[in-house]
Amino acid sequence: MLEYTQRISRGGQQSARTDEIEIFRAVADGENVIRIGEDVAQGQVVQARGSSMRPAEIGGLMALGIVRVKVVRKVRVGLLATGDEVIDPRQAPRPGQVRDVNSYTLSALIEKSGGLAKRYGIVPDKFDALKNAAALGLSECDLIIITAGSSASTRDMTADVMRALGAPGVLVHGINTRPGKPTILGVCDSKAVIGLPGNPVSALVNGYLFVVPVIEKLMGVSPRPKATVIARLTVNLPSQAGREDWWPVKLFPPPAGRGGRGEGETQAEPIFGKSNLIFTLAAADGLLRIHPDITGLSAGEMVEVYLL
Amino acid sequence: MLEYTQRISRGGQQSARTDEIEIFRAVADGENVIRIGEDVAQGQVVQARGSSMRPAEIGGLMALGIVRVKVVRKVRVGLLATGDEVIDPRQAPRPGQVRDVNSYTLSALIEKSGGLAKRYGIVPDKFDALKNAAALGLSECDLIIITAGSSASTRDMTADVMRALGAPGVLVHGINTRPGKPTILGVCDSKAVIGLPGNPVSALVNGYLFVVPVIEKLMGVSPRPKATVIARLTVNLPSQAGREDWWPVKLFPPPAGRGGRGEGETQAEPIFGKSNLIFTLAAADGLLRIHPDITGLSAGEMVEVYLL
Repeated sequence: MLEYTQRISRGGQQSARTDEIEIFRAVADGENVIRIGEDVAQGQVVQARGSSMRPAEIGGLMALGIVRVKVVRKVRVGLLATGDEVIDPRQAPRPGQVRDVNSYTLSALIEKSGGLAKRYGIVPDKFDALKNAAALGLSECDLIIITAGSSASTRDMTADVMRALGAPGVLVHGINTRPGKPTILGVCDSKAVIGLPGNPVSALVNGYLFVVPVIEKLMGVSPRPKATVIARLTVNLPSQAGREDWWPVKLFPPPAGRGGRGEGETQAEPIFGKSNLIFTLAAADGLLRIHPDITGLSAGEMVEVYLL
Repeated sequence: MLEYTQRISRGGQQSARTDEIEIFRAVADGENVIRIGEDVAQGQVVQARGSSMRPAEIGGLMALGIVRVKVVRKVRVGLLATGDEVIDPRQAPRPGQVRDVNSYTLSALIEKSGGLAKRYGIVPDKFDALKNAAALGLSECDLIIITAGSSASTRDMTADVMRALGAPGVLVHGINTRPGKPTILGVCDSKAVIGLPGNPVSALVNGYLFVVPVIEKLMGVSPRPKATVIARLTVNLPSQAGREDWWPVKLFPPPAGRGGRGEGETQAEPIFGKSNLIFTLAAADGLLRIHPDITGLSAGEMVEVYLL
C-alpha cells in the first residue's frame, strides 16, 4: 500500500536513476492484488439470460466494460373493464353505479412487474362489443385481462368471448380460492387471456397471483425469492377446508433488537371487512395464504406473509 | 341478487303498472349492501402524507373519484467519483486503472428508491477540482455522494472538501461496519453529503444502508416493513466483536410446501470472496447482518436476511 512506502532520493538529488522506495511494513506475496480471473473467470456467464438487472449486476457489467446489453421488450398487457354499472373514475356515480377501480390497480401492478399497460376502457355488457374490444386488444397486446362487471348479465360473457376469440379458449373456469373464485384462464390463438372478478379486491389479489407470473413468464424472467415475512398471527383465522384463502394482513415489526438472530417477532394482524372493499388492501402490508388442506389458523401460529 | 329474481308480467301483458319481481331466495336486511361509510367514513384520511402509492392505494383513490393527487418531487442525488485510477466504463483499463462502477450501481439504487441520479463524472484527485465539482453538485441537487478513489492521496480529501463546503461539515468520519469502514456522513449548508468507500461492494452495501434512508427521509416517506427472509445459515460465520458485519448471502428457498404455516425453511449460504469484487453482490439475494455484540454465527442458526 502506497501509504506504507516512501520515496528515497539519494543525496537530496532526485533523478530517474535514484527512483527507489522504502517499504515500512512487510508484505506477503499476492497481498492486495486481485488475480486475473479472481472475480470473473474467462468464459464465465456474468449475467444469465432471464436474470434481472439490479444495481449489483449493472456494476458487474460496467466493471467489464459491457455498456450495451440486450434487454427483453416489455410485455404489453391490454385491460378491458366490463359492466354497464361501471363508470369512469372522473364521473360521479348514480345509485347502482361504481367507479372503475380495476383498470387502474391492475395498470399499476402491470407496470411495476415489467409490463406496459394499455387500457381499452369500459366495455358495455354486450357480447359483440366485448368480443370486438377483446379482439382489438389481442391484436395489439401480448396478453389481455378482462375484469368482469358484477351484474348477472356479464357473469359468463367473458368465457363466451374467450371461446369465440380463438382456440383453445377457456382452460380454467373458476378457481378454488378466496378471493378469486370466478377467475377464468384461457389462451386464444397463442395469447393468454385472463378473466378476473369485478370485485376490486379479488381482481387485484388475483392479479398478484396470476397476472404477474404470466408477465414474468412472457419476459422469460428467472424468479428471485419472493419477499415474505414470517410473522406471528394475532387472532384465530377460520378457513373452509378445500379452499385456498388469501387474507390481507397488517404487519407490526418487532422493536429494533440485536439483529442477526431473527429473535424479534413480527406480528401479523388480519384485516377484516367486506371482501370487495379496496381499502382493506390499501391498509395491508401483505397477503397471508391459508393452504386448502387447513381449516384455519390459530392465534399465535407463525405464518408466512407475502409482501405486497 | 338479480339472478335470484324473476320479473312477473301479469296475463302475459307487460306494462309499467305490472313491473313486479318474484324473489326465489330469502334475503336478510342489509345483505349484499355496502352501507354508506362502510369502506371509508366521512372525514377519514384515505392516504396519509408520506405513504406510497401502491396498486391498492391507487384503486382506493379511483373508487373515491380522486384522480389528481399531489406527489412528492423526486430527490435529486448528485454522484461524484474520485480517483486518478478510475476510468470511464467504456475505456479499457491500463495496469493500475479500474472502471467506474460506483456511479452506476448507485445511480440504479437511487432511481429505484425514488431518487433522480445525476452523475458528475470522474473527478481528478485534486482538492480544488473535487471541491468545485461538489459545490456544483450541491447547488443542483438535494444530496451528493462522493465515492472515494482507493489511492492514498484521496483518502481524506472527501472529508477535507466537506469541511470546506459549508457548516457543519463532517458529522461522522468512519463507521464500525464491514464493509463500509471509511464511510463519511456530513451536512454542508443544510444539504446531506455522503462519502462512500471506493470499493464497489462497500459503496453499494453502504448505499443500501445510508443513501436509501436519506432519500426516503428527504421525500418524507413513511417506512414500510423491510423485505426480509428468515433463513437457516448453512455454515459458521465469524465476526469481530464490536463490529457490525453485512454478508452477501444466496438464498435457497424451501421446496413448495403446504404454505400458511411457515414450516418450510429457506437456507442462507454466505458468499465468500474478496470484499471488493462486485460479482459477489451480483450473486447475492440478500444481506445478512451480524450484530456488533455477536462474535459470529453458527451453522444451523436462524438468521434474518435483508433482500436486495
